[in-house]
Amino acid sequence: MPFPSSATATPIQDNPDTLLRQRARRVVPGGMWGHMNVASLPEGYPQFYRSAKGCRLTDVSGREYIDFMCSFGPIILGHHDPEIDDAAIAQGRRGDTMNGPGECLVELAELLVETIPHADWATFSKNGTDATTTCVTIARAATRRRKILVARGSYHGAVPWCTPSLVGVTAEDRAHIIYYDYNDLESLTSAVEQAKGDLAAILATAYRHDVRRAQEMPTLDFLRTMRQICDDTGAALILDDVRAGFRLHLGGSWEVYGVRPDLSAWSKAIANGYPLAAVTGRDAFREAAASIYITGSFWCSAVPMAAAIATIRKLHRSDAAAKLERAGDRFRNGLQKQAARLGLSLQQTGPSQMPMLLFEDDAEFRLGGLFVAEALANGVFLHPWHNMFLSLAHSDAEIDLALEGTARALEAVARIA
Amino acid sequence: MPFPSSATATPIQDNPDTLLRQRARRVVPGGMWGHMNVASLPEGYPQFYRSAKGCRLTDVSGREYIDFMCSFGPIILGHHDPEIDDAAIAQGRRGDTMNGPGECLVELAELLVETIPHADWATFSKNGTDATTTCVTIARAATRRRKILVARGSYHGAVPWCTPSLVGVTAEDRAHIIYYDYNDLESLTSAVEQAKGDLAAILATAYRHDVRRAQEMPTLDFLRTMRQICDDTGAALILDDVRAGFRLHLGGSWEVYGVRPDLSAWSKAIANGYPLAAVTGRDAFREAAASIYITGSFWCSAVPMAAAIATIRKLHRSDAAAKLERAGDRFRNGLQKQAARLGLSLQQTGPSQMPMLLFEDDAEFRLGGLFVAEALANGVFLHPWHNMFLSLAHSDAEIDLALEGTARALEAVARIA
Repeated sequence: MPFPSSATATPIQDNPDTLLRQRARRVVPGGMWGHMNVASLPEGYPQFYRSAKGCRLTDVSGREYIDFMCSFGPIILGHHDPEIDDAAIAQGRRGDTMNGPGECLVELAELLVETIPHADWATFSKNGTDATTTCVTIARAATRRRKILVARGSYHGAVPWCTPSLVGVTAEDRAHIIYYDYNDLESLTSAVEQAKGDLAAILATAYRHDVRRAQEMPTLDFLRTMRQICDDTGAALILDDVRAGFRLHLGGSWEVYGVRPDLSAWSKAIANGYPLAAVTGRDAFREAAASIYITGSFWCSAVPMAAAIATIRKLHRSDAAAKLERAGDRFRNGLQKQAARLGLSLQQTGPSQMPMLLFEDDAEFRLGGLFVAEALANGVFLHPWHNMFLSLAHSDAEIDLALEGTARALEAVARIA
Repeated sequence: MPFPSSATATPIQDNPDTLLRQRARRVVPGGMWGHMNVASLPEGYPQFYRSAKGCRLTDVSGREYIDFMCSFGPIILGHHDPEIDDAAIAQGRRGDTMNGPGECLVELAELLVETIPHADWATFSKNGTDATTTCVTIARAATRRRKILVARGSYHGAVPWCTPSLVGVTAEDRAHIIYYDYNDLESLTSAVEQAKGDLAAILATAYRHDVRRAQEMPTLDFLRTMRQICDDTGAALILDDVRAGFRLHLGGSWEVYGVRPDLSAWSKAIANGYPLAAVTGRDAFREAAASIYITGSFWCSAVPMAAAIATIRKLHRSDAAAKLERAGDRFRNGLQKQAARLGLSLQQTGPSQMPMLLFEDDAEFRLGGLFVAEALANGVFLHPWHNMFLSLAHSDAEIDLALEGTARALEAVARIA
């Protein structure tokens, strides 16, 4: 545990979270898996949750937080937005997982095609990983080539071709993956040369949102160069919009740059927490998309699709990206003022809708860990090394309240900095 | 369309299903994907559904069927069993997709460990494919070997290492997959020899339930030989119980044979239609399971876990496998008598809980296609070349009613046989 423990945290030896962790360790390998395993997070970080509503989250110990993680992205309107839950419940009364899709599959595909300028069609699945893997398979089917260019350190999912760990992965799982550095034209060009005539696709996240480092927006040059290479070679430009999708622009995160992908992977925020993923694509890749075999038992379930339709319609009505940006700006500006007053240097990077907060010269997250532990103790849920997320439920009042908590947390940091 | 059209089917040129298919063709590649695409199924087969309740299913045209597909497996208690939906709705009021799991994750893992004799632990995901892929990755991590033995023609999911089509798949995706024939000891032994010292796992479905052919139960010899090879080599014996799980035996489909796997993949019926998958395993594979990186945005969502807890508890209380078998037997015996009376030869194979119905000498499904089309026209939902599924909602009265429909359908078959 590299983090200093929180001075104000309550004793945790017999609280419900601790007891649940002990039970979990017996029946779940390592007590928990993946990005939701809090083993390497500051002391006091809860592992288990009781309930959520709006921008508030309550852990199993009954502690309530103003939540800036939004379930790592899925919650874009606020937890359990009544309009979305009502749409889901109404669909659930009729049918969810049936012998095939409901009408809502067609409605949702039509809505995505209307909403996303590069989308001529859509398919649906459950995980972001399903969507990125489908994009890769479509690109290979369309081009009859094999090489996929992936930015070093970018997260595209948790199966052998892309998972961040190599444990249990064979060399062949990555035989046709070539790495480049995000925003680095030289490394991109060199990766293209390495692929020679075998380039099937260039895959990139909406912007550089790797964990444990400052976020970086894509340069226009980078996006245009990728587009040009794909136009020249017939390879597919794949946008992995799983994490950023719907927060920066409803039509896809590169719309503001005027660069359009051939295929996009979506998930997380698409249905405000209901499990769904999607692939959208251009007509040129339609035939290939129809030619591959993809399927899943729950991919046609109607409830998450009804929730997605309601979510996207509400996002359209709400001028969502701009509102999320304003909320993020309010939070960022407040933090910046608090830090400046205390003589602390904060590095706030990436889009305001998905803020990342790092302290300068804090590679071991000593300051970041303490800050987050103290913020939690003061009712504000943050993450020390993963980008955070705003939702439309983050009102000015809630953000101002959160800033009262961060003020106290930053004071604790200033004492050890 | 190789099937004769149904004499009694209503005209479909302007019914809601046809209109939806036309809309779908514009916005979904091929109009639909995977196992729920009905393009190669008999005329009159619906593509889109409106609602489901108990063992009844209603398509978008308002036609109601007694459903023997159970959403291709997920529905084991009947569509929208009130007890399960109530548990899901109650959890949904508190929280679903939060910043981490709810208490129900631990409860469900504990329940699986109590229920499944070989299970010392569990992890959760969304797709059956997630579960089988996780098992393979754990086996490789545990053994530090690479080769996975897979039965030729068995379905284990829809990603490049296992999907039934090779379109968009590279040779390297299958570099370490070695095929054997289910129930064939000679081919199994030869596959093991081919793997030499590099055998990570033998993977097998609960029984042979490949599409388009008669089902086959595993021989005791086959199961024991797989177990012995894995004991001798340290490889993992992986049971893919995604399709059959919970219908044949709550403790895993091989329990009746006294052969226990090291790892099992579960999904489909685990939560009566709510999207969930699980991996269970023996202690020897716990450390490896904790060492790999797997995760998904919705893998910790609480609603499907609450539904799974309620489902498994109800299955325990209901003596489910025996009841499903009796229901399946009643259906089978009725069909057999009807066919015999008409001089038709039916091939009914596999467990009664998951019946497969083929006509003798009907490789092109000419008779099967007509039978299913006529059954649909008479209110009975069947499949011509995929195994079917019983649920606890299939009461004697419903099965007897279904048999009235199949009697008329078989008469139509007898006229052309």
